Amino acid sequence: MSDQQPMRVAMVGLGTVGSGVIKILFEQAERITRRAGRPIVVESVVVRDPTKVRSVNLADDLIDTAIDVIEHPDVDVVCELIGGTTTAGDIVRQALQAGKHVVTANKALLCEQGDELFQLARELKRAIGFEAAVAGGVPIIEAVSQSLSANQITSLEGILNGTSNFILTEMLDRNVSYEDAVAKAQKKGYAEADPAMDVDGTDAAQKLTLLAQLAFGTKADLKQFPRQGIDKLDLADLKYADTLGYRIKLLAVARLADGSLELHTQPTLIRKYQPMADVDDAYNMIELEGDAVGKTWFSGMGAGQMPTASAVVSDLIDLAVGRAQKTFPLLDLWQSQKPLPILPADEIKRRYYLRFHAVDEPGTMAAVANILGENGVSIASCIQHESESSVKTSPKEPKIVPLVLMTHICTEGQMKAADKALMECSRIKKNFLRLPIRD
Amino acid sequence: MSDQQPMRVAMVGLGTVGSGVIKILFEQAERITRRAGRPIVVESVVVRDPTKVRSVNLADDLIDTAIDVIEHPDVDVVCELIGGTTTAGDIVRQALQAGKHVVTANKALLCEQGDELFQLARELKRAIGFEAAVAGGVPIIEAVSQSLSANQITSLEGILNGTSNFILTEMLDRNVSYEDAVAKAQKKGYAEADPAMDVDGTDAAQKLTLLAQLAFGTKADLKQFPRQGIDKLDLADLKYADTLGYRIKLLAVARLADGSLELHTQPTLIRKYQPMADVDDAYNMIELEGDAVGKTWFSGMGAGQMPTASAVVSDLIDLAVGRAQKTFPLLDLWQSQKPLPILPADEIKRRYYLRFHAVDEPGTMAAVANILGENGVSIASCIQHESESSVKTSPKEPKIVPLVLMTHICTEGQMKAADKALMECSRIKKNFLRLPIRD
Ligand SMILES: NC(=O)c1ccc[n+]([C@@H]2O[C@H](COP(=O)([O-])OP(=O)(O)OC[C@H]3O[C@@H](n4cnc5c(N)ncnc54)[C@H](OP(=O)(O)O)[C@@H]3O)[C@@H](O)[C@H]2O)c1
Ligand SMILES: NC(=O)c1ccc[n+]([C@@H]2O[C@H](COP(=O)([O-])OP(=O)(O)OC[C@H]3O[C@@H](n4cnc5c(N)ncnc54)[C@H](OP(=O)(O)O)[C@@H]3O)[C@@H](O)[C@H]2O)c1
Repeated sequence: MSDQQPMRVAMVGLGTVGSGVIKILFEQAERITRRAGRPIVVESVVVRDPTKVRSVNLADDLIDTAIDVIEHPDVDVVCELIGGTTTAGDIVRQALQAGKHVVTANKALLCEQGDELFQLARELKRAIGFEAAVAGGVPIIEAVSQSLSANQITSLEGILNGTSNFILTEMLDRNVSYEDAVAKAQKKGYAEADPAMDVDGTDAAQKLTLLAQLAFGTKADLKQFPRQGIDKLDLADLKYADTLGYRIKLLAVARLADGSLELHTQPTLIRKYQPMADVDDAYNMIELEGDAVGKTWFSGMGAGQMPTASAVVSDLIDLAVGRAQKTFPLLDLWQSQKPLPILPADEIKRRYYLRFHAVDEPGTMAAVANILGENGVSIASCIQHESESSVKTSPKEPKIVPLVLMTHICTEGQMKAADKALMECSRIKKNFLRLPIRD
Repeated sequence: MSDQQPMRVAMVGLGTVGSGVIKILFEQAERITRRAGRPIVVESVVVRDPTKVRSVNLADDLIDTAIDVIEHPDVDVVCELIGGTTTAGDIVRQALQAGKHVVTANKALLCEQGDELFQLARELKRAIGFEAAVAGGVPIIEAVSQSLSANQITSLEGILNGTSNFILTEMLDRNVSYEDAVAKAQKKGYAEADPAMDVDGTDAAQKLTLLAQLAFGTKADLKQFPRQGIDKLDLADLKYADTLGYRIKLLAVARLADGSLELHTQPTLIRKYQPMADVDDAYNMIELEGDAVGKTWFSGMGAGQMPTASAVVSDLIDLAVGRAQKTFPLLDLWQSQKPLPILPADEIKRRYYLRFHAVDEPGTMAAVANILGENGVSIASCIQHESESSVKTSPKEPKIVPLVLMTHICTEGQMKAADKALMECSRIKKNFLRLPIRD
C-alpha cells in the first residue's frame, strides 16, 4: 500500500530548531510512525559548515552542503530551517518547483515573500506548513485554519514574542533595568546577540500579519499599522502600570472594526486578572474570539528548541498523513476573497497611558491637560507624586518629576496631534511615552 | 470535480446543540463552503416531536421523526445530537453500518460504548468526529490527536465541567451556599433540571476517559479511578482554601507515573496564580504537557449552544475536507498498542486537605494527629480557630469547631486507612472532607 511508503525529508539548517527536529524524528521514530501512519525518514541535511560539532549525531553521508540535494527524486518534503529571507526564499521556491512540499519556521520570510510563495505552492499543488513560524509550540495556525473553522474570527490578540515577554517579566519581578533584563534574556538563550527584531516589535508584527492573513484574508504590510517595541520602557512604567491595576505586555492585535481590520503591535497596559496579563516569562498566549465559540485562549512556550521542533514535526506528520495537502488549498492566503481594508491608524480608538518627565512647577499639569483637551483627549486619572523636597537644588534648574496620565477613549489621530503640541511644550521633556490600554 | 459535490448531513436531535448547528450551517453557508471546499447541506433533521416550536426555522419537509432517514443514500454524514446512550448508540451503529460518517457531542455514549463504536467505524472505514464531546468549544481533541502529535503527552489536567466550575466560582465570589449557586446555574441554563452528573463528577470523569484514551491509548472504566463531586463542599472549604493560598476546582487528571497511568477526577486545591486556579464561571481549561512542547494551555467555553455547535461544525468541515477520514484511523482508540496499566488508586501520591468538625476539647488535635501519624500521614499545616466563646452552651454538648489540616505527600492508600480510623474517633464528626492538593 503506497501510503505505507516512508515520507522522505530533506532538511536545510541544523541549528537550534533543526537539531530539535532531528532529535524528535530519531528518538521517537516508533511513535511518529504510528501517528503519521508511515515512517518519516531524513534523507539529507544541508548545513553551511559540515565540520561543525553538532548536538545530534548524524551519519556523515546524511550531511551535505549543496542545496541542490533538495531536488533529489527521493525527497518528498523540504524543511527550511536556516532563517533569513534571501537564501531561504530561494530554497522554498526551488523545493516547490521541484515538486516538494515545504515546512518552514521562518516568519520573516513568510511575512516578506509569503504572498508569492503561498501562491506558487497553490499553483503547483504543493503545501507549505508553517505552524512553527508563529508562537512556537502553541498550535495557533491549526486552531485558526482548522479547529475554529466554523467561526468568523472577530478578534485575535496575542503575546507573540517570548523574548520581550521574558524581559518585561524579569524587569518587574526582579526589579531590574531594561538593560539588565536583556542581558539575562541573552544568557538564557532567548534573545539573539542582536535582539533588535524581538524588542522593537518587528518579530511580533511579522507573526501578527501571518495570523491576520489566515484569520481575515487580508495581507498587511508592516508599514500599514502602528508598531512599537519594548525598548523605550522604563522599569518605572511597569510599576506605574502596576499601581494603576495593569500589566504591560507587548500585545499584537488584529480585530474587525466596522468592516475594517484594526491592526497594531505595541506594549499595552492590560488590566490585571485578564488571562493575558498573567502570561509570564517566555510564554506566548493568543486570545481568539469567534462569532460562535466566543473567547478561547491558547498558550505555551513561544520559542526554544523543542517547542519549535514540536511544531515542525507536527507539520511533517500532517503532510505524511495527507491532511496538510487538503487543508492548504483552502486557507485564506491568496486574497482571492475581497480582502478587508486596513483601518487607517489615525482612526484606531483606545484609551492611552501617558508618562512625562515634567518640570515641577505650578501649572504644568494644567498645561498638559490643556494641550490634550484642545486635541479632544480627556484625562481619566493621573499619578503625580509630590517632589521629594520642595527646595530646589538650584534656582536655574527646576526639579523634574514624573507625571502619569490615563486618558478616556480617543483616536490615534487625536493623540498624534496632541503628541505634536506636547513636543513643543517647554514644561515637559520630549522623551515622553504613550501606550495604549486594554481594559 | 467530485470534491465539489455538497456534503449531505442528516441530523438527529434539534435541541440546544442541534439548533446551534443549524444556525451556523444556514447563516454562515458561504463561509462554511469556502472553509470546507464544498457546501455542507442539511438533508433531514430527525426530532421526537415535529410540532414543537423551534428557535430555528426549518422547511417542514426537512423535519422527520423516522430515524431510518439516516440510511438514505443521499446522506453522507449523520450528526447524533440527542444525548442518552441507548437510542443514541443504535443511531451511531445504524449510521456506520449504512456507510455514513458520524459526528457526535455525546460523551456519555462514547464513554460507555466508545470502544465498540470506534472499532466498528474503523472496520467499516468510516470516521467518528467527537470534538464537541469534550470541553465544548475548546479544540482539545484536535490538539491531542493532531497539533501535538509530535509529543508523548506526559500529563493532561483539566477543568472539564463548566457547570461545576460556575457553581464553585459563584459560591466564593458571591459568598453564597452550594444550594444557592446550583439554583443560579440552573437559572442561567448551565445546569440541567437534574444536575447530578455534573456535580458528582461523572461528566468530567467521562470526558477524562475519552481524553486519556486519545493521549495514552488506555481505556479506563469510571470504576477504576477516584471520582468525587463538588456536592460535598461547603462555602467554608472554599474560604479555608483561599486563606491557605488555593482555589478549589473540579480537576480531572491523567498523567504518566512510572509506566502507569494515574487517573482521578476530584475537587482539588490548586495553588493560586497557576493558570488553572484562575479559570472562572463556565469556562474550561486543559493543561497538556508534552515531552517536546512542554506545558500548553487551552481554554474557552466548555458548554453552551454556540460553543458546542462550533465544535460540531468544525467536525463536519473536517469530514467535508477529507481530513477526518485520514486522522481517525490513526488515533489511539482501539487498544491495538499495549495499553498502559492504570495506577491502582491506593498508590496515587499527593498532599491532602482535611476538614473536620471536631469537638472543641483539649487533645482533639493530638488525637487526629496521632491517627494520621499511625498511618504514615504527617501534617504540614493547620488552621484551628479558637472557639468564639470558651463557655460551653451546655455541659453535655461540647462545642463543635472546624479543624483544617494540610498533609505532606502520602499515598491514597495511607489516607484511606487513616479515614477508617478517623471514622471511629469520637472527637470528630463522621462527615469530614478530604481533597487532594495540586501545588
Ligand atoms: N530558535 C527558536 O527558538 C526559533 C523559534 C521559532 C522559529 N524559529 C525560526 O527557525 C529558523 C531557524 O532558527 P534557528 O534558531 O534554528 O537558527 P540557527 O540556530 O542559527 O541555525 C541555522 C542553521 O542553518 C544553517 N545555514 C545557515 N545558512 C545556510 C546556508 N546558506 N546553507 C545551508 N545551511 C545554512 C546553519 O548551518 P551551520 O550550522 O553549518 O552554521 C545552521 O545549522 C529561523 O527562521 C527562525 O526564525 C526559531
Ligand atoms: N447543551 C450543551 O451545552 C452540550 C455541550 C456539550 C455536549 N452536549 C451534548 O450534546 C447532546 C445534545 O444535547 P442538547 O443539550 O442539545 O440536548 P437537548 O436540548 O435535550 O436536545 C435533544 C434533542 O434530541 C431530540 N431527541 C431526543 N430523543 C430523540 C429520539 N429518540 N428520536 C429523535 N429525536 C430525539 C429532541 O427532540 P424534541 O426536540 O422533539 O424533543 C431534541 O431535539 C448530548 O449528548 C449532550 O451531552 C451538550
